[in-house]
Amino acid sequence: MSDEIVTGGAMAPRQIAELPIGPRIRKSPFFEATQRAGFRVYTVYNHMYLPAYYRSVQEDLEWLVSAVTLWDVACERQVEISGPDAAAFTQYLCPRDLSRCPPGHCRYVFMCDANGGILNDPLLLRLAEDRFWLSIADSDILLWAQGIASQGSWDVEIREPDVSPLALQGPRSADVMCDLLGADMAALPFFRCREADLDGIPLVVSRSGWSGEDGFEIYLCDGQYGDALWDKIMAAGIPHDIAPGAPNAINRIEAGLLSYGGDMTQADNPIDMGLDAFIDLDIDADFIGKKALLDIRARGPRAVFTGLEFSGPPISVNEHPWACRDGDAVIGRVTAAAYSPRLHINMGMAHLDIAYGAVGTEIEVDTGSGVLTARVRPLPFYSRRG
Amino acid sequence: MSDEIVTGGAMAPRQIAELPIGPRIRKSPFFEATQRAGFRVYTVYNHMYLPAYYRSVQEDLEWLVSAVTLWDVACERQVEISGPDAAAFTQYLCPRDLSRCPPGHCRYVFMCDANGGILNDPLLLRLAEDRFWLSIADSDILLWAQGIASQGSWDVEIREPDVSPLALQGPRSADVMCDLLGADMAALPFFRCREADLDGIPLVVSRSGWSGEDGFEIYLCDGQYGDALWDKIMAAGIPHDIAPGAPNAINRIEAGLLSYGGDMTQADNPIDMGLDAFIDLDIDADFIGKKALLDIRARGPRAVFTGLEFSGPPISVNEHPWACRDGDAVIGRVTAAAYSPRLHINMGMAHLDIAYGAVGTEIEVDTGSGVLTARVRPLPFYSRRG
Repeated sequence: MSDEIVTGGAMAPRQIAELPIGPRIRKSPFFEATQRAGFRVYTVYNHMYLPAYYRSVQEDLEWLVSAVTLWDVACERQVEISGPDAAAFTQYLCPRDLSRCPPGHCRYVFMCDANGGILNDPLLLRLAEDRFWLSIADSDILLWAQGIASQGSWDVEIREPDVSPLALQGPRSADVMCDLLGADMAALPFFRCREADLDGIPLVVSRSGWSGEDGFEIYLCDGQYGDALWDKIMAAGIPHDIAPGAPNAINRIEAGLLSYGGDMTQADNPIDMGLDAFIDLDIDADFIGKKALLDIRARGPRAVFTGLEFSGPPISVNEHPWACRDGDAVIGRVTAAAYSPRLHINMGMAHLDIAYGAVGTEIEVDTGSGVLTARVRPLPFYSRRG
Repeated sequence: MSDEIVTGGAMAPRQIAELPIGPRIRKSPFFEATQRAGFRVYTVYNHMYLPAYYRSVQEDLEWLVSAVTLWDVACERQVEISGPDAAAFTQYLCPRDLSRCPPGHCRYVFMCDANGGILNDPLLLRLAEDRFWLSIADSDILLWAQGIASQGSWDVEIREPDVSPLALQGPRSADVMCDLLGADMAALPFFRCREADLDGIPLVVSRSGWSGEDGFEIYLCDGQYGDALWDKIMAAGIPHDIAPGAPNAINRIEAGLLSYGGDMTQADNPIDMGLDAFIDLDIDADFIGKKALLDIRARGPRAVFTGLEFSGPPISVNEHPWACRDGDAVIGRVTAAAYSPRLHINMGMAHLDIAYGAVGTEIEVDTGSGVLTARVRPLPFYSRRG
């Protein structure tokens, strides 16, 4: 396999189409602010416009890992479950032990269907004993939760509140938060949340975010303050070298963070991704998918979701999944791939047949216009969150 | 109000952003064919890329109303409900009398939540006594239906089959269909469906589509034939002056066709849109939202969804909803607006307080950068389907 073929295939930059801005897809309360900031590239997530990057994926990455960046992630909608049965009902939706998640704590959870198939992977925030937010990835969990609740006798209210998150990510994010909301923000532990108030703007703040850097998510609880909140954070960030940004396609692979719809769908389950650490099957409480997941565990995982390091010159972010091969046999698929400037490697994430899952195993990857050699590596490649 | 202000505001063309093509959003089996055809503008619908227009909304319209156009609408995913309880379960999801929808027939249905709020407005195809497709608008009805079914004892299977629709729309669409599938296609009545086979490619065909013209929807039942089907239809269309196209933002307003997410959301119900004709509340069968919709009917509709004709020079398709006013009072919102070249009017669709719903009523509409006078008109403005 010559370098020429490898370069010609894997280096091809992703295609950019045009996207009309219209009334069918929702605008975030920060949309106008992102327009003024100069964003021109958007995707769609939970029926909303999501800024995709600011300057370029590579330039945004430099700012993210060296200073601090502000992202409009209002498309991470909140599904709020409240009421006397909120804890029991939320537990029923999530195969994770929520009895160990007290108010003020967050959990990364998979939500599964009756077959164990993954429907979403939200960050769960427990705001109070009887009040939860599911900060969702790109699927209509509101309909799933309301459909289930409509058939039972749970005493719960399920709604999408007027809540729109921003993400403040990067090594200097705590400095900005302290300037904005007080010095005790630096002490907020990872995956903890609390309410806050910024000059009368109602907020919830969590130490979390879809990057491998330190960071916070700032949930605006009244959409009319979108411009004001964006501008206040950008102003407070000036001494800390803040820049606008967006969820970063390179950094998230370094950190091994999943993207629902791309890395996994309802056809995947947590056990056949090797992600048992994020589910708790042996709790007393019942939850949707429990029997199916126990059965899958009993028969043993057939696949694993793992890192790959590719040979060859630097590759671009992939446009579509790549087939993993052992000779003529298809043994998996690469869902995400990119070159890491700080690690100086081509890296990717892949579903692989369990027989190929051991670290160091060598496989071939067909990018559609070239073949790369790849070696299995553990996830994450790099994360400051450990 | 000077013409200058009106023109400057309402004429402003819609903004176009950039849209990266990546692995998170699904590609249709016809995606490569649309790329080869030269499509450059896409939006996102049901987590898939949807071609937005080919040349321009105005040029596409000319082809649609004078000849025939082929659209990739694979993003209209099918939710298939089958099994012994399929009829009862589908009825439970839809506030419309499905006992009068025998196999081979289609219905336009609202799907409502327990409060009567609209979750989707699919075309329902009854393929057999015990097999239904919901050809859905942009929300995850699969999760809604599966969530409800998971809590009951219905003997049903609910899944998203490998089915991807194309739409063939325009006055010459029947000519193309006859050349492709036989002369009896011309006799297929509106809102009827049947299975078909094109050189071994398995299809379902319905006489339907999201335009005011004659048309068919062609449901590819095996995704591997995407390229082959697109090419066969385009080849058969050459004598009939076929062109690539897409759902048309002007034609659909002329025809009074709704766009879920833009024209209505879960916050709207069919009765407060004056769309009682599409629901059947007095059937014996139970369905989700029945009590709420009966209550809303009993208290009487508070609003109506209607047409508007605007004053002034030709307007562009709106980028965002426009506020309807009577003096300082907000009395509704325009969800869609455009200039109709064949009717030579500025037209729109709006939710209006019931007090302003009578045909001929004059109101003011604030486009955000200008004010237009508008007069209430019935929907549709124009449709060849009557």
